Order: sequence, then C-alpha cells, then structure tokens
Amino acid sequence: MARGLDVTLFATGDSLTAARLSSVVPASWSEDPEVDPKVAECLHIAAAFERAEEFDLIHNGFDFLPLTYSGLVETPVLTTIHGFSSPRIVPVYARYDRSNAYVSISDSDRHPELTYLATIHHGIDTDAFALHPEPGGYLLFFGRIHPDKGAAQAIEVARRAGLPLRLAGIIQDQAYFDAAVAPHLDDDRVVYLGPVGPEDRSELLGGAVALLHLIEFDEPFGFSVVEAMAAGTPVLASPRGSMPELIDEGVTGFLVGTPEAAVAAVERCSRLDRAAIRERAVTRFGQDRMVDDYLAAYRRLLEERPPRG
Amino acid sequence: MARGLDVTLFATGDSLTAARLSSVVPASWSEDPEVDPKVAECLHIAAAFERAEEFDLIHNGFDFLPLTYSGLVETPVLTTIHGFSSPRIVPVYARYDRSNAYVSISDSDRHPELTYLATIHHGIDTDAFALHPEPGGYLLFFGRIHPDKGAAQAIEVARRAGLPLRLAGIIQDQAYFDAAVAPHLDDDRVVYLGPVGPEDRSELLGGAVALLHLIEFDEPFGFSVVEAMAAGTPVLASPRGSMPELIDEGVTGFLVGTPEAAVAAVERCSRLDRAAIRERAVTRFGQDRMVDDYLAAYRRLLEERPPRG
Repeated sequence: MARGLDVTLFATGDSLTAARLSSVVPASWSEDPEVDPKVAECLHIAAAFERAEEFDLIHNGFDFLPLTYSGLVETPVLTTIHGFSSPRIVPVYARYDRSNAYVSISDSDRHPELTYLATIHHGIDTDAFALHPEPGGYLLFFGRIHPDKGAAQAIEVARRAGLPLRLAGIIQDQAYFDAAVAPHLDDDRVVYLGPVGPEDRSELLGGAVALLHLIEFDEPFGFSVVEAMAAGTPVLASPRGSMPELIDEGVTGFLVGTPEAAVAAVERCSRLDRAAIRERAVTRFGQDRMVDDYLAAYRRLLEERPPRG
Repeated sequence: MARGLDVTLFATGDSLTAARLSSVVPASWSEDPEVDPKVAECLHIAAAFERAEEFDLIHNGFDFLPLTYSGLVETPVLTTIHGFSSPRIVPVYARYDRSNAYVSISDSDRHPELTYLATIHHGIDTDAFALHPEPGGYLLFFGRIHPDKGAAQAIEVARRAGLPLRLAGIIQDQAYFDAAVAPHLDDDRVVYLGPVGPEDRSELLGGAVALLHLIEFDEPFGFSVVEAMAAGTPVLASPRGSMPELIDEGVTGFLVGTPEAAVAAVERCSRLDRAAIRERAVTRFGQDRMVDDYLAAYRRLLEERPPRG
C-alpha cells in the first residue's frame, strides 16, 4: 500500500490493515470452537480465487491448498513457501511447480525438486528495536523451549563463559524443560522469564552480550536472530539451516559448530560494533528490503505472464 | 455407462469400473501412511475440476470441499450430500446453495437451510439377494455394534418375543458391546456372528423372521434395511430418520416406537408376503430406480444450465 499498489487482503475480519480487507471469518478459527478449520480454510481460499479476475496477481502465503485452485484461474499466483510441515505435502508443490511461482524464505529451505522464482528473507519493523550501545552483562536464549532450539546448549555455554543466562520463550516441550532447563534455574545465574511480549523484546534483546541460537535443526529462518541484530546484539548460532545466510560472520555474529567454539566466540562478540550490527540488520532484514524484493518478484512474474486486458 | 452415458470416474487407481478412470492415488489413502489425506483429497478434486470443460456435468459425491472449486468453472455441479458430519460444515453448503444442485439421500436428511434438486434414495444390486420363501426361526440385528443402532433393544425384543437373535456387524463401541451385548450371548438364543461379508449376507438376511432395526438416532438411510427387504425379510424399525420413507407399513415391515410395539409386530411379520417384500425392494431400492432418478436429475439440471458449445 505504501508503495502505491492496490491491495486486497484476504484475512480474518479482525486484521489491522491499510489494504482493502475481505474476510470469511471474524477472527482466527483457533480462537473459535464453532468454526471448523477445514471449512474456514476452503471458504477463505475460494473467496479469493472467485475474484481472481479483479487482480493482476495473487500472492499466496497460505500453504499448499490454494495451489489446487490456481489451475482454474488465469491470474498468476506467487506462493511464499513458509516451510514444509511434512514431506507428504511436497507432491502438491511438485504438481503445480510449473504453473506457480515459488518464493523460498531462505536458500536453505529450498526443496531440490522444486523451481523457485526467488529467495526472499523476511523483513521486520526494525524501528521496533533500539540500539543498545552498552549491553547488560548477560547472554540470552530467545525461542521456544524445545530440544530443536538448543536451550540446554545455551545453559552450558553461558556457564562455561562465566556469564549469566536469561531464557525467554514459551515451553513447547514440558518434559525437556523439566529435565534440561529447570534443574539449572537459580533466579540469579540462569533465569527463565517465560514468554516475552513485543513491548519488552527490544530491551531484553538489546541488553544481551549475545544471543545464543545453538539450534539442533535446520531452521528455515530465525526471527529472533534478525530481531537481536536490529537491537545491535550479535548472534552466536549453529551453522545449520538458514543461519549462514542470516549471519555475516565477524560483523553480526559468529557461526559456532561446538560448545567450545561458542564459548570462545562470546568474548569476540563483546568487541563487535553494535551500531554496525543494527545497520546491517536494517539493510538486510528491514521491511523495505523485503518489500523491494517482493515488488521485483511480482514484476518478474508479470513480465512472464502479463495480465489480460 | 449401461445407459449410454460417457462417464469419467475420478477415484483411486484400484477402482473397478466400466467408466474411464482418472486417479491421483493408486489406492485408498486410509491404507497408505505415506499419503497425507488432505494432499490426496485436494489433488483429487483439482484433477477433476481442471478438466471441467470436457464435461457437461460434474457429479460430486465427495462431501463439501469440491463445492469451493465449483465457482471457478462453468460446468454445472450436482452434489449428493451423504450426510452432515457436523453442523460446522453446513456453511459451505449454504454458501454454494444457489450455484450447486444438491441431492439428499432421504427427505429426513435434508437440512432446512438448503435448497435441493431432488431426494434420491440409494439403490442396491438386488440380484445379490435371493428371496427366502420360508425363513429360519430367528430375528436378526445387522449393523455396527453401537448404542445408535439398538443392539440392546434387539436383544430385549427377541427375548420377549421368544425367538433367537443373531447379531452381525463390527464392534464400533467396545464398552457398549461389553456392557450391553456380551452378557446376553449364550451361543444358542443370542449369538454374535461378527462382521458378515457380502457372500453370506443374502443367506443371513433372508433367513430371518424379521430384521430388528431399533435405532436410537435419525439415520439418514439404512442399507441393511433395504438389503433385508431385497431378501424378502420384513423390517421392524424405530420411526426415526429415514425409516418412514424406507418402510411401507404393513407391506415391507412396521414402524415400532416401543419394545412392546416391536414384540407385538414380530408375530405380524411372519404373516407378511415375502415375495411382495422383495418385489417392493426391487422396485423402490434397485439400482435401476436410482439410475433413473439420477438421469432425471441430470436432465433437470442441464435444462436449467445448458452446457456451452
């Protein structure tokens, strides 16, 4: 909208948007037991595709089901693939590989069987994060408490680095929390804060010596990683998934393959230029860059498939 | 096909059909853990609708999801509603009420908010059932072992009528079976046969003095009811759901609202003309009648919405 495009957003009725809003349900169906998710989902998709002729392009951010409607309309469809919940959904993407334009959220998340128009990393509102030139004296874990996310690894690295650790995030795996996190909590050196909302996020991220993102899976993107950078905080991350794409080694953080490497890198983090980290985050992961990338992708797609009329 | 129509069947690859077969999966996904049902379902639907221009009419027997594709094609769609799994799916039918032609499987299964083209009762291959002029000396329960289906009621009525009872069907509710059925089994007066396949069905149904169909829910249709009739066996059924539509009172059976009425009607059943029962079943619930009805519905729909070209 800010770039002058005419946008209709198909989303829940409570969505806040400058675009024209079209809704089939008043609010998220996860909040309404009266709504059958499959019903809301298909009515939502059909509402958009039944108006396809009004649009030059449909940008689908709603997983695979809309692809199966795309063959019934002339309007080109661009689909951002936000990840594959299971290998069993790949056949739908493969079936519509030629007719759809796929955007990956990182190079690492690309599926080898599919053709992509572009990789477009997410952009965030970097104004929501303020530079903290002088960080507090703690390391930070920020994410779901789940073995994938490396809370236990963060606890070990903080202990060996001789720094306090704060952990923030929902408990997704209670057994893991009980076994690998809870025994280390002491209200002093290792503190679990629970989930931290948007209003406190800048302060918490910006106050850390470094974000410890010692993931144990191939994470397709990491919002907390780029949010930390936007607050000027460097990131120590496992060299997995999208991390090599997100982190500029020696500028915004370090890729660390072992606890030893992580411990050694903590010291180097405190010597990084935090203003430069934030600057890099604004350039690479700000909303403007994402919008630029999507506008370029839209244009490429429309050059390949010009709208009718 | 037998009536000279050109038919393409969209179904699993292992389907046996005289029609042209189109498949996206080799077999039922319930038999294949590699297949995501939602994936198979939407690819299946899209495969049909992407070829909509080839067809004068699409007959949908696949619940509500295909309705949401129907607004994207010109081909008229007729949908047989095989029941409502939940009131939460009704909004999809309501949304496409004007554009789709709905067929109910009984008048009793009609939803008051929807418009219907016709009610078409199912038809069966009545040749698979043979008349048994002289029945055996037992009453029969034939259906899922579940409180809805009235196995306990059948046991009580048989006891009070002084006749043996045979029960056939899968155990859908084990707790109900254990509490309400198992204590009465004695391998003599009350016998549970387990599920009975097609090859033994005619013999078992045809040998009964009557089928006891003392349902405790508004059943939209009853296959065992019309199958019993096709074997010449009268039916005693609760006056609920589609039963008043299926049973010709005093000809093919009786509607019985209480156990007392059922016990009294057992005697009257033995005086009914079993050849007349089968004849009525062939007329009213044979495949030919169903095909006639569907052809008439297709014609009505095509008169309203003539195919292009």
